[in-house]
Amino acid sequence: MLNQRGQFSRGLRHKNAHRRNNAPIKAKKPHDIIPSLAEDSIRIIPLGGVEEVGRNMTVIEFRGDIIVIDAGIQFTDTETPGVDYILANTKYLEERKSHIKALVITHGHLDHIGGIPYLITRLGNPPIYTREFGSLLIRKRQEEFPHLPPLDIRIVDADDKSIPITKDLKVRFFGLTHSIPDSTGIIIETPFGDIVNTGDVRVENENGVPAEKEVEQYKMFKDRNVLLFTMDSTGIEKPGFSPSESSILKNIDQIVARSDGRVIIATFASQVERIIEFMNIAKRYGRKVVIEGRSMRTNMDIIKHLGLVTVDHIVPVEEIEKYPPNKIMMIATGAQGEEFAALMRMSNRTHKYIRLIRADTVILSSSIIPGNERAIAKLKDNLYRHDSKIITYLDSDVHTSGHGKRGELEWVHRQIPYKFFMPVHGHHYMLKQHAELAEQIGCPRENIIVPDNGSIIELQEGGKKFVKLPEKAPSGDVVVEGFSVGDVSEVLIRDRKMLAEDGMFVIIAMVNTRTGHLKKSPDIISRGFIYLRESQDLLSEARNVIKRSIEGITAGMNPINFDYAKNAVSDDVSRFLFQKTAKKPIVIPVILGV
Amino acid sequence: MLNQRGQFSRGLRHKNAHRRNNAPIKAKKPHDIIPSLAEDSIRIIPLGGVEEVGRNMTVIEFRGDIIVIDAGIQFTDTETPGVDYILANTKYLEERKSHIKALVITHGHLDHIGGIPYLITRLGNPPIYTREFGSLLIRKRQEEFPHLPPLDIRIVDADDKSIPITKDLKVRFFGLTHSIPDSTGIIIETPFGDIVNTGDVRVENENGVPAEKEVEQYKMFKDRNVLLFTMDSTGIEKPGFSPSESSILKNIDQIVARSDGRVIIATFASQVERIIEFMNIAKRYGRKVVIEGRSMRTNMDIIKHLGLVTVDHIVPVEEIEKYPPNKIMMIATGAQGEEFAALMRMSNRTHKYIRLIRADTVILSSSIIPGNERAIAKLKDNLYRHDSKIITYLDSDVHTSGHGKRGELEWVHRQIPYKFFMPVHGHHYMLKQHAELAEQIGCPRENIIVPDNGSIIELQEGGKKFVKLPEKAPSGDVVVEGFSVGDVSEVLIRDRKMLAEDGMFVIIAMVNTRTGHLKKSPDIISRGFIYLRESQDLLSEARNVIKRSIEGITAGMNPINFDYAKNAVSDDVSRFLFQKTAKKPIVIPVILGV
Repeated sequence: MLNQRGQFSRGLRHKNAHRRNNAPIKAKKPHDIIPSLAEDSIRIIPLGGVEEVGRNMTVIEFRGDIIVIDAGIQFTDTETPGVDYILANTKYLEERKSHIKALVITHGHLDHIGGIPYLITRLGNPPIYTREFGSLLIRKRQEEFPHLPPLDIRIVDADDKSIPITKDLKVRFFGLTHSIPDSTGIIIETPFGDIVNTGDVRVENENGVPAEKEVEQYKMFKDRNVLLFTMDSTGIEKPGFSPSESSILKNIDQIVARSDGRVIIATFASQVERIIEFMNIAKRYGRKVVIEGRSMRTNMDIIKHLGLVTVDHIVPVEEIEKYPPNKIMMIATGAQGEEFAALMRMSNRTHKYIRLIRADTVILSSSIIPGNERAIAKLKDNLYRHDSKIITYLDSDVHTSGHGKRGELEWVHRQIPYKFFMPVHGHHYMLKQHAELAEQIGCPRENIIVPDNGSIIELQEGGKKFVKLPEKAPSGDVVVEGFSVGDVSEVLIRDRKMLAEDGMFVIIAMVNTRTGHLKKSPDIISRGFIYLRESQDLLSEARNVIKRSIEGITAGMNPINFDYAKNAVSDDVSRFLFQKTAKKPIVIPVILGV
Repeated sequence: MLNQRGQFSRGLRHKNAHRRNNAPIKAKKPHDIIPSLAEDSIRIIPLGGVEEVGRNMTVIEFRGDIIVIDAGIQFTDTETPGVDYILANTKYLEERKSHIKALVITHGHLDHIGGIPYLITRLGNPPIYTREFGSLLIRKRQEEFPHLPPLDIRIVDADDKSIPITKDLKVRFFGLTHSIPDSTGIIIETPFGDIVNTGDVRVENENGVPAEKEVEQYKMFKDRNVLLFTMDSTGIEKPGFSPSESSILKNIDQIVARSDGRVIIATFASQVERIIEFMNIAKRYGRKVVIEGRSMRTNMDIIKHLGLVTVDHIVPVEEIEKYPPNKIMMIATGAQGEEFAALMRMSNRTHKYIRLIRADTVILSSSIIPGNERAIAKLKDNLYRHDSKIITYLDSDVHTSGHGKRGELEWVHRQIPYKFFMPVHGHHYMLKQHAELAEQIGCPRENIIVPDNGSIIELQEGGKKFVKLPEKAPSGDVVVEGFSVGDVSEVLIRDRKMLAEDGMFVIIAMVNTRTGHLKKSPDIISRGFIYLRESQDLLSEARNVIKRSIEGITAGMNPINFDYAKNAVSDDVSRFLFQKTAKKPIVIPVILGV
């Protein structure tokens, strides 16, 4: 019997055995023993954001004190089904919780603040230093986690004096340009010089000539001693300069001016500065504004709270019909083709108040976030089913990124004379390209380190040397799934992918423990495998296979070895189903002795 | 008991009930009754390819005879987990099988020929008219389906005389430019004028000036009476002209000339014309060529068979070390980040023969197919882990698409004077944009029809009128899954997505049919839900919920209503698990009476 099963059978049994105990595929690497930090060394550990776009988090450690910059989330993709977010691994910090003196926030986007609710207590609830707009977004998000202790948020201004955090470390915020109010870079002042982290950054420019305010923003660096420069690499692959935000707004202003119907603008809720300007444009043309989408309304509440723009022309969506079409602007979420967002509902005729018509102009003031191509194609298909005018960034400059292109990055490099460079924020290949850029404009190769998540990098001997240690801080993915925050289980993810492809096939058989014969025809429960209604023949054949397989083992066996019978039926049924369908559902045998 | 369950419970029960019988979510629309075709009308039905990129297939019907153009597959995405390919719905053709006189193939790419093995017998195995390169690809693919009857392939030349197919219809192939040898457009000659279908098309050009051979290719249309023009819309969104293939080859030639190490070029195996030129470039610089990847080798076999290029410098990969690095060129698959393709294996150090080193130059001669962004980012990350030189289309012109951009499409429009226009090949929004282009250059709006899959379009009254009927041919997705070809089951797909997100939770309980009590603690089998090892408390709580729920119904009940008990336990456990984890696994109760 065993011999007959042969190679294929053993392969399958092995696989199933693996699955049964739900053990991780790879044995976990034992912790590196991390050397202690010398008195004259500063340690920098990017815990997240350097092998991906998202979950930005960097550790700065010096003489027993730790400052953490940002605590972001990463959005997930089809590689991790069932996972809500991915967080940076904070084990290094948790083991040094009492040393953490501050969490410093560059700006209020989720890839910089989204991890706070999940991580802040693990870090010992340190004070959070942030500018005001970020503080409001942090507080807003925290409301969804009412069980957490209150946050210790300390609001700072940019270009303020330095804020002493420890005996040896001060933090100073400097204003720069991104796409949300109160975006800042951060300077950690150390006795050996500055560590500068830009956060996310672009450079407002006119045809490649930086605006005056940009020149101003970076002037302070002329007189500073920058030991280490770390910078956003997200836009490195794109050559040149981005179109300026002001040209985008000019284009949209003209589209609104020319439109004699409603104007519906979809953009990211995170594009707060642009949304503020949309409010101004609406005002200019006497249009009422309807805000659609939860995140959009949340951000508008904060804009209102801070008085960043006049909001008396906002009207609720239910009242949209009270105004002539050419007096309406709608600002909505959904430009990425999100299934239930306002724009998708308008496009597929399920929006409660709005039906698109020919006279409407729809502007997608956004680019395509990688991974959303198919959702956006579907959105555009739906939009083009109406006769409305559709304008995207392909037709006209109606969007520019918050992350500077290569030319902008280069310009910033030239504003900040530094000794050492470490690219951050981006996939590894972006960091490598950013390193090449630094080298091209004069930074010696040995003064550049391209880090991975968990790389331990030190400025040693009072800032003379820039070194990556052979040891690494723990850096395995930490995932948020529903209420759980923890290590990712590779078996869980693998099972989900298998279930998604081929479904599952549960066998329930009752065996008479005296005779070893089945009490009745076995039950089969299957989901996601094949369309069972049209497969009655297959099912009845499968029942025969099950009966033969189990009874071949159990008939006359006393006592019955259930594990042995389970393995046998699992192998036989898997092989049978594969032969018949070319599919490999997860086969789960349940054999009950009665 | 029932009342206590309340709203949430009813919702869940309803959902589960749905799942249990595996019925399609939407009732199927009864067939439209399709009117018969008038003697002076020609019917055109795009069965696939006009709401997507892929599965191209168009029906031409006249006086009882049918010609089918192309039979492609569409590749699937995360929206249809477990599905291998999507085919056009051929029900209309199957019901008129005996009328099909020919399947006419524009070129040998899978989105034009890939459906043949699955569909040809359903169409009554009609003769297939194709040029030679396509015929070899069709035959090669057919070898994987040895149980099928032999194909009746009739090889034709482009610009041959017209081929009479029926009394009233002739077919003529005309050469045009795409990216695979023997690409053609097709003219269906009818008594009322020509129906022209371009297939996939680009225009070779130098800075927007079409090459001489392009002008030649379309000269014949000056004297023809084109009643209906249908054309590829894939590239419509991109303005202007593509870089010319000759400029791409010149760039790659220079990169090869300058490289003093190995050159590894990854491209689509379908880019056959370019691959032929790579062979010539290698020859020019005395480099041996290694071909890596199954589809690449298949196409190279055909190239060799047809004598399209000298191949005596091909060497097997095992011999790569025999030659100095600067005498090696490798042509490989995997530019889209395919997990097991040659380039990915080189990049992640699992290739049997090749380790990338600093002196290597890797050229990704390809663009990003929407949906592959993340796979390609991973590939680039892996490649950049080595110190090899990496060149992509972002760095240098090393790729151009086989689908012409808007400027090229416009130029082709101007070469072919036509009366009616129908855009094909592309998402709906692309077709709409292509229709706008046709209108802009002078085609009256009423002479243009934008079709959907299954739209029945007629040239009526001897070609005077161009009409879309209110009736539609069946157009539901037909999917290939392993050995099965059939309608897509929405329940199956939905279950797979739910399994992928939240997994499943099977409960096995044995009830004493006399007492209604559980015989022992219930068994639980779960996959893809949570990491069970760390959830022992949850499991034991769940067992209590199960016991209470079932016995609450069955204790003292005689006979036991098992369905009632199953519904109850399913609801209670679903709610319990959601409260504890915020996840919603598919809960499957098995209650056995003993």
